[in-house]
Amino acid sequence: MDVLVPFAASRPKTRLAGVLGPDERAEFAEEMLYDVCCAVESTGASPMVLSTDPIESAWPVVVDDRPLTDAVNDRIEPPVAVVMADLALATPAALSRLLDADGDVVLAPGLGGGTNALLVRTPEFYVDYHGASIADHRRIATEVGTTTTVDSFRLAVDIDEADDLAEVLLHGDGRAARWLREAGIELETAGGRATVRRSTPR
Amino acid sequence: MDVLVPFAASRPKTRLAGVLGPDERAEFAEEMLYDVCCAVESTGASPMVLSTDPIESAWPVVVDDRPLTDAVNDRIEPPVAVVMADLALATPAALSRLLDADGDVVLAPGLGGGTNALLVRTPEFYVDYHGASIADHRRIATEVGTTTTVDSFRLAVDIDEADDLAEVLLHGDGRAARWLREAGIELETAGGRATVRRSTPR
Repeated sequence: MDVLVPFAASRPKTRLAGVLGPDERAEFAEEMLYDVCCAVESTGASPMVLSTDPIESAWPVVVDDRPLTDAVNDRIEPPVAVVMADLALATPAALSRLLDADGDVVLAPGLGGGTNALLVRTPEFYVDYHGASIADHRRIATEVGTTTTVDSFRLAVDIDEADDLAEVLLHGDGRAARWLREAGIELETAGGRATVRRSTPR
Repeated sequence: MDVLVPFAASRPKTRLAGVLGPDERAEFAEEMLYDVCCAVESTGASPMVLSTDPIESAWPVVVDDRPLTDAVNDRIEPPVAVVMADLALATPAALSRLLDADGDVVLAPGLGGGTNALLVRTPEFYVDYHGASIADHRRIATEVGTTTTVDSFRLAVDIDEADDLAEVLLHGDGRAARWLREAGIELETAGGRATVRRSTPR
């Protein structure tokens, strides 16, 4: 099965600016993309990077600089899955739960109402990534067929904010986690949820 | 199987102070406790509230005002599970994945390195809820037997901070979600992850 992996190649991960500089954010985003494509490929599916700009990649890349919703909707040819490029905790096991689930539409919610991964088996479904997209995707899916929701922590955590980096350090074992450690990003567990700090200046 | 549900009855959920007043936080915490105990009971297991202070409850309550780690360790008589009282998204299906999993120790990680739920089948295991407890619990579990990790978004989201309330509004369907709506808490989806706002003043 084809799995689209949308990737924002220009100025990625701006919400990590408090911890990582612009070049670092670009490097880290590419490491996450690599990890995600590896995990997808390990399930037996075929990753296809859907990038806003030309990039080098070990996997096929298609470039589309339109907004995410338009770029994805033009490429929904069932069966197809869409897996975000910043799911640094995604494992083949977690992705297999998505790809092997029954249903015309399979949804994996993300933190804060996002839709981090989905699988489409009916041409009538379309995406709308604006706002709390999981609510819209549930509604659209219900209108066009049967819906399954995958209950996965590893697919729910997209890496957008500094606190999310703690999840990569705690649960990741790919290139993104290694990159963070080598950049001197380490866990900070002062109280409440763990977050991160830099052990060395930028 | 007995399922301990630890509950901080005095001054609960202080990190929600930006959105909810003290009495509201206490009410909301009790609604979450109710939802969690209902979900546990629906799996066929027996909830036992482990409270820091005497409270009224439809389920058995044992009071222990010591720190969480001590209170839990004194009551690990396998098989036993520990499920936090603020898992407002927990469903019978998600809890069944915990309770039915193989392994001497079954762990469900929480956001920020917490351990939101666990199941113990060996008397040699003990808990240590200090810091990023999931890392410690993995280590302890590996020392005493086989370990399984449950990959669940619904068990990973504990309701500690204002942004977590958005998850309850998006994915909850119990008393806690209803309480929030009746208190005038609504989704705010300005950009990035959804959060919440009050539609009416306190």
